[in-house]
Amino acid sequence: MSIPFELLATDSKSSARLGRLHTAHGVVETPMFMPVGTQGTVKAMLPETLRQLGAQIILGNTYHLFLRPGHQLVKKMGGLHKFMNWSGPILTDSGGFQVFSLGKLRKIDEDGVRFQSHLDGSHQLLTPELSIEIQQALGSDIIMVFDECIPYPSTREYVVDSTERSMRWAKRCKQAHDRSDGSALFGIVQGGMHADLRQKSVADLVDIGFDGYAIGGLSVGEDAQTMYEVMEYTIPHLPEERPRYVMGVGTPENLVEGVRRGVDMFDCVMPTRNARNGVLFTGFGKLSIKQERYVDDPLPIDPDCDCYVCRNYSRAYLRHIYKSNEILSSMLNTQHNLYYYLQLMEQMRQALSCGTFDKFCQEFYLKRQSGVELES
Amino acid sequence: MSIPFELLATDSKSSARLGRLHTAHGVVETPMFMPVGTQGTVKAMLPETLRQLGAQIILGNTYHLFLRPGHQLVKKMGGLHKFMNWSGPILTDSGGFQVFSLGKLRKIDEDGVRFQSHLDGSHQLLTPELSIEIQQALGSDIIMVFDECIPYPSTREYVVDSTERSMRWAKRCKQAHDRSDGSALFGIVQGGMHADLRQKSVADLVDIGFDGYAIGGLSVGEDAQTMYEVMEYTIPHLPEERPRYVMGVGTPENLVEGVRRGVDMFDCVMPTRNARNGVLFTGFGKLSIKQERYVDDPLPIDPDCDCYVCRNYSRAYLRHIYKSNEILSSMLNTQHNLYYYLQLMEQMRQALSCGTFDKFCQEFYLKRQSGVELES
Repeated sequence: MSIPFELLATDSKSSARLGRLHTAHGVVETPMFMPVGTQGTVKAMLPETLRQLGAQIILGNTYHLFLRPGHQLVKKMGGLHKFMNWSGPILTDSGGFQVFSLGKLRKIDEDGVRFQSHLDGSHQLLTPELSIEIQQALGSDIIMVFDECIPYPSTREYVVDSTERSMRWAKRCKQAHDRSDGSALFGIVQGGMHADLRQKSVADLVDIGFDGYAIGGLSVGEDAQTMYEVMEYTIPHLPEERPRYVMGVGTPENLVEGVRRGVDMFDCVMPTRNARNGVLFTGFGKLSIKQERYVDDPLPIDPDCDCYVCRNYSRAYLRHIYKSNEILSSMLNTQHNLYYYLQLMEQMRQALSCGTFDKFCQEFYLKRQSGVELES
Repeated sequence: MSIPFELLATDSKSSARLGRLHTAHGVVETPMFMPVGTQGTVKAMLPETLRQLGAQIILGNTYHLFLRPGHQLVKKMGGLHKFMNWSGPILTDSGGFQVFSLGKLRKIDEDGVRFQSHLDGSHQLLTPELSIEIQQALGSDIIMVFDECIPYPSTREYVVDSTERSMRWAKRCKQAHDRSDGSALFGIVQGGMHADLRQKSVADLVDIGFDGYAIGGLSVGEDAQTMYEVMEYTIPHLPEERPRYVMGVGTPENLVEGVRRGVDMFDCVMPTRNARNGVLFTGFGKLSIKQERYVDDPLPIDPDCDCYVCRNYSRAYLRHIYKSNEILSSMLNTQHNLYYYLQLMEQMRQALSCGTFDKFCQEFYLKRQSGVELES
C-alpha cells in the first residue's frame, strides 16, 4: 500500500495539478516547496518561524547527518523530528548527491560509493542498504532511493551504465525499506538528457513500484530549456496517481514551469543560500541588498510583500546589517526569501483551485518584466 | 527637570532598591539589565524576541553607528528606534569606551580624541559635542557623557588628569545636550580604583547635575572584590533619587552584588558574546556546550529553566549545531542566555517587592555551589 496521494484538480490548459499528500507526520498540499535543512536546521530559521511562513515539510540531508552527528545518535535522541524540534513531515535525500559533490576520493562500484568525509577525511562506504538504514534511523517520512546524480555533460555510455546501476540500487533500496514506521519510499528517475534513457528509467522504477517518483540529475549545469524538455518527455510517463518531485530545483521561474509540466514537489537551497549572500527574491525579480543604491532607501525589499521583514525593515537597514556581517541579516533575508518561495507555491495552489493557473502564469511573467531594473 | 525616577522600595538589609524609570519611549523597571545592540541589532535576536524575553531597554553603541552606517543616515531613516524596529527605550553609550578599545593611533587632548576607524582607517575626531550630536541624531532616550575609560592599572597621576578632563568634558556634554526631544543625560563617575578620586568625581558631576549617574572604568581587569569596593565607596555619595548605572558589568554574581550595593542599571555583552562561543548560563553555573560530555545528553541546558530553548532542545542538539557552525546555534544560545539574565533581574525585582532580597541572595549562591560540576 502506497501512502495516500489525492489528486484534487488538474489544469485544463497545462499539466499542472493540485494535490494532497499524506505522510506519517501530517498532510502536505501540493504543489509544494521544501526548505532545505541540511544539518538538522534550516539555516538561520527557528522551526516555529518556518511553520508561520507556510512550510509544510522540510528536507534533511542524509550525507551530512550520517557524518555528523551520526544517525544512531539522532535515533537515540528520539529521531530527527524531536532532535530538531520540527513536528511536521520530513523528506530525506539519500546522500547520493552530496557523496558526489562533497565526498573526497570517491570510488563507485556495484556495492555503493567509497569516499572520504569532507569533515575529517575518515573512510566511508555508503550503500543503498545503508542509505535506507540511515534515513529510517532519522525517522524520515519520505525516504529517497540511493542513486548517482550523473554529472553533466556525460557520454551516453556513462549515462547508460550509471542509470542501470542506479535502477539496480533502487531495487535494493525497495528491498531494504521497512514500511512498518509509515514512511514512504520514492524512486529517482535518471537517464541524463536523453529521452529514451529517461523513459527506460521510469519504466524500470514503475516496475519496482514506489510511493512517489523523483526526477534527479537536473540543475546540474544544463540550461533551463533542456531542464524543461527533460520534464516534458519524462513526466507524461510517470503514474498519474503518484506524486512527482523534481530534486534540487530551482528559481521561481523553474517552479512555475515545473508546476505547469506536472511537478508536485520541489526543494532547493536557493532561497536560503542566496539570502545569506544578500540576494533577495521579489515578484519583480532579484535584488542584491549589498548595492550602494540601497544605502538610504527607506522602502522595504518588496513594497508588494506583506512578510514580517517587509513590514518592519527598510532596504537601508538590511543593507547596513548585511555590510556589518550581522547574524540578523541572514535571519531576516532568509525569512523574506522563504516567504516569497512558499507564497509563490500557495498562489499556484490557489490558482489551480480556482482554475486560473494560466492567468497566474501570465501575471507572474508580466510583473517580472516590469522590474528589470531590480536585477543585480 | 530630570526624567522621572520613582523609588518604590528599598531593602532593609542592603542598599538594594526597586524603582521605575520613565523615558521618552516608555517605562523601565529597575534594577534592570540592558542587552547590547552594538551595530543596530542585538546580535542574533529579533526585536520581538527581545521583548518576549523581558528586555525593557537596549543599548546602542555610538562609536559603531557613527562609523557605520553613520548617524546622519540613521536620522534620515527616522532614528535608531525605527531603523532597527525597536520601539522601546534605547540608551546609547558615548563612544568613549570603543574609541579607546577599537580605534587605532588614538590621540587624546582637551578637544577630544583623534583616531583611525577600525573599519577603513579613516581619520576621525570624536569630541564631547559630537558625541552628544550623534546620540541625539540616533534619537537615544538616555544619552551618556563622553569620557575616557581609564586603563587598569594606571598611575594615580594619570587617573587624576584623565578624570579631571572627563569632568570638563561632562560639563561640555551638558551644555551641548538639547533636552527638547525628551532625552535624558547621564554623567559617568571616573576616578580609577581610588576612593577620594571617585568621590571627587561624584561631587563634580552632581555639581553639573545629571538625570542619572553611571560608574565607568569597571570591568577593566580588576578583580571582583576591587569592583565591589569601588561601588561601596562611590554609590553612597550619589544622589539617592537618581538612577545609578554600572557600565559594562557583568557576570550574574556581579549583577547580584551590584544590586545589593544599590545599582539600578547594568549592561554587558557577556550573555550575548558567550552565547556565540557556546557558553551558557544556568542557575547552577556556566555550561560549555561544545564539551564531549554533552554529545548524547537528552537534557535541556538547564532543567529548571522554562525558556523556549530549554523547553524544546536537548544539549545534544545544541552541541551538534554549535559544532556544525549553524546560525541557529547563536540564535538559540543567545535567547537562552538573555532569558537567564533578564529573569535574574526580574527575580531580584520580585524579591525587592516582597522584601525577600536577602533570602534571594542566599538561594542564588546555594544553587551555584550545588552545581560546581557544570563549570567549563
